[in-house]
Amino acid sequence: MKVSELGEFGLIDLLAKMVNSSPGSQASRQQLIIGIGDDAAAWYGDASTQLATVDSFIQDVHFSLGIASWNELGWKALAANLSDIAAMGSIPRYALVSLALPDYTEVDDVTALYKGMIELAQEFGVAIIGGDTSSAPLVAITITILGNAKNGDKHILTRSAAEPGEKVAVTGELGAAAAGLEMLNKQLQFNPEATTCLKNAYLHPYPRITEGQLLVEQGVKTAIDISDGLISDLNHICKASQVSARIEIDRVPIQPTVKANFGDKSLELALSGGEDYELLFTASAKIINKVRRAASCPITIIGEIVADRIGEVTLIDRKGNPFNLGKAGWEHFTTR
Amino acid sequence: MKVSELGEFGLIDLLAKMVNSSPGSQASRQQLIIGIGDDAAAWYGDASTQLATVDSFIQDVHFSLGIASWNELGWKALAANLSDIAAMGSIPRYALVSLALPDYTEVDDVTALYKGMIELAQEFGVAIIGGDTSSAPLVAITITILGNAKNGDKHILTRSAAEPGEKVAVTGELGAAAAGLEMLNKQLQFNPEATTCLKNAYLHPYPRITEGQLLVEQGVKTAIDISDGLISDLNHICKASQVSARIEIDRVPIQPTVKANFGDKSLELALSGGEDYELLFTASAKIINKVRRAASCPITIIGEIVADRIGEVTLIDRKGNPFNLGKAGWEHFTTR
Repeated sequence: MKVSELGEFGLIDLLAKMVNSSPGSQASRQQLIIGIGDDAAAWYGDASTQLATVDSFIQDVHFSLGIASWNELGWKALAANLSDIAAMGSIPRYALVSLALPDYTEVDDVTALYKGMIELAQEFGVAIIGGDTSSAPLVAITITILGNAKNGDKHILTRSAAEPGEKVAVTGELGAAAAGLEMLNKQLQFNPEATTCLKNAYLHPYPRITEGQLLVEQGVKTAIDISDGLISDLNHICKASQVSARIEIDRVPIQPTVKANFGDKSLELALSGGEDYELLFTASAKIINKVRRAASCPITIIGEIVADRIGEVTLIDRKGNPFNLGKAGWEHFTTR
Repeated sequence: MKVSELGEFGLIDLLAKMVNSSPGSQASRQQLIIGIGDDAAAWYGDASTQLATVDSFIQDVHFSLGIASWNELGWKALAANLSDIAAMGSIPRYALVSLALPDYTEVDDVTALYKGMIELAQEFGVAIIGGDTSSAPLVAITITILGNAKNGDKHILTRSAAEPGEKVAVTGELGAAAAGLEMLNKQLQFNPEATTCLKNAYLHPYPRITEGQLLVEQGVKTAIDISDGLISDLNHICKASQVSARIEIDRVPIQPTVKANFGDKSLELALSGGEDYELLFTASAKIINKVRRAASCPITIIGEIVADRIGEVTLIDRKGNPFNLGKAGWEHFTTR
């Protein structure tokens, strides 16, 4: 059945039932007063630091239906948004989903999209409490996430607190998401294990919610999630903090499958590929060591914050010489 | 200059400056910790009932750039979203704007869009605190509004509290927005005063924020804003409240300019035209009279809630006979 046969209100009813019957977001739901089906969602809010972030995913700009299944699309769209809350070291609580769809979209595809979102939402106790559906010539998914700081505290991670002398570190390993996209786009052939690994890195990223909260607990002040690419996102930190940064390219943790299959290109994928949704953060070496001991994922120091030219990210090779990559990261509207 | 020349980050900087330099949202801004420019916006939240609503406006579905200027588009998109908070009787506080734009969009057009939004936001003390920009083949504006109940109270207006025996009432007058759209679409010629009146009704609606809060104060429990059309929106109340409703068509307050220029069609425009953003509510006659005395806009009783077939809206003429309009209101995905 197509959404044009079910109609807007039938579709909203169907999605509301799916969302309301999913267990796993009990803590958030307990405070809920009104979910899907009224003019706005409403809940009891505690006195605490509140957070909100919004992101749109537009067909053939952010995703291709030839590459991502609807289920994967739902997972990934929500993951990318949750990653913004991870980058603030906070707890995601509620999601609102605005969905634009062509009239000929299959209802089964829309429910698959929601299944993908609900699956991830439940892992982190997030309740989908509202949204909007409308017809459009292409698919566009806009998700708003609402959250709060852990312990109601005002201590959250920002982009603007980096200081000269701090080290720059990342969670996990880099480059696999961009490698996965390239593999899928160019139909590159690798062994089955590598294929699965790279595909999942691109289509099924796992937001670093737990790690973001860990960073706050250990005293980190500055972080961003790697969505545009390591260099581009570090540049955001540098601009917001009025500092610059130096990255030792040999220390960048390139994901091993990428290294094994993409040769010389793997460094570029790790430095500017984007969409890895790892956390990039700055702190003293002492704090980073504490984070490393407490974290269940790799934590790698890749460089340092310096007081040189404001807003500049410099790459240096093992000899300490400047290294030119020529490509920084993703930016909308530009043809770079 | 086109947005492709300025780039995503340049555009974000420009819009952030516009938003941050606008006065008038002091109360909201005082509690703000982080606005535009980080992974998420953050603010100190009080212990109170919180609200959130999201709506997308998509080119050639919700609006046409041949009809609305960019400034009008900004005003209207925000007005429609604020109207959802009005329908809950609550106070809008923060807005997040996700903007999808073709690369060839003029930067001046985007700033005009923001000027329209900022102008309205300031009237109601709403601070634009975050968002997202991306390239897309068409213009799509998704606005999330965050608000809270007046006095932190849990008493908000919902769709689901209507009871048999209550009267159905509306704020203001109906039909002018749909008449304005028809005038603009079909290039109908009226006298200058009528033209301005109808154009403003469609492009420059004024959300009933003050009136929504007044309804809560006077003890009203049930309301919705008229966005899809009177019948369709009353139907939403009936379904959510498990009741039905009877409308006396002669009592519907048709906007005078519509009546004067659209003859027999004016009733249909008032009943199913939509986008008037008036409030439709139910309460006892006594409460409605109290509302009428306190309100600065017309308050008209147009019918009553009955316990007949659940979810049905019946129209009756002056003789008490059923009246068939044949058209209910706007629904996405359907070709009705």
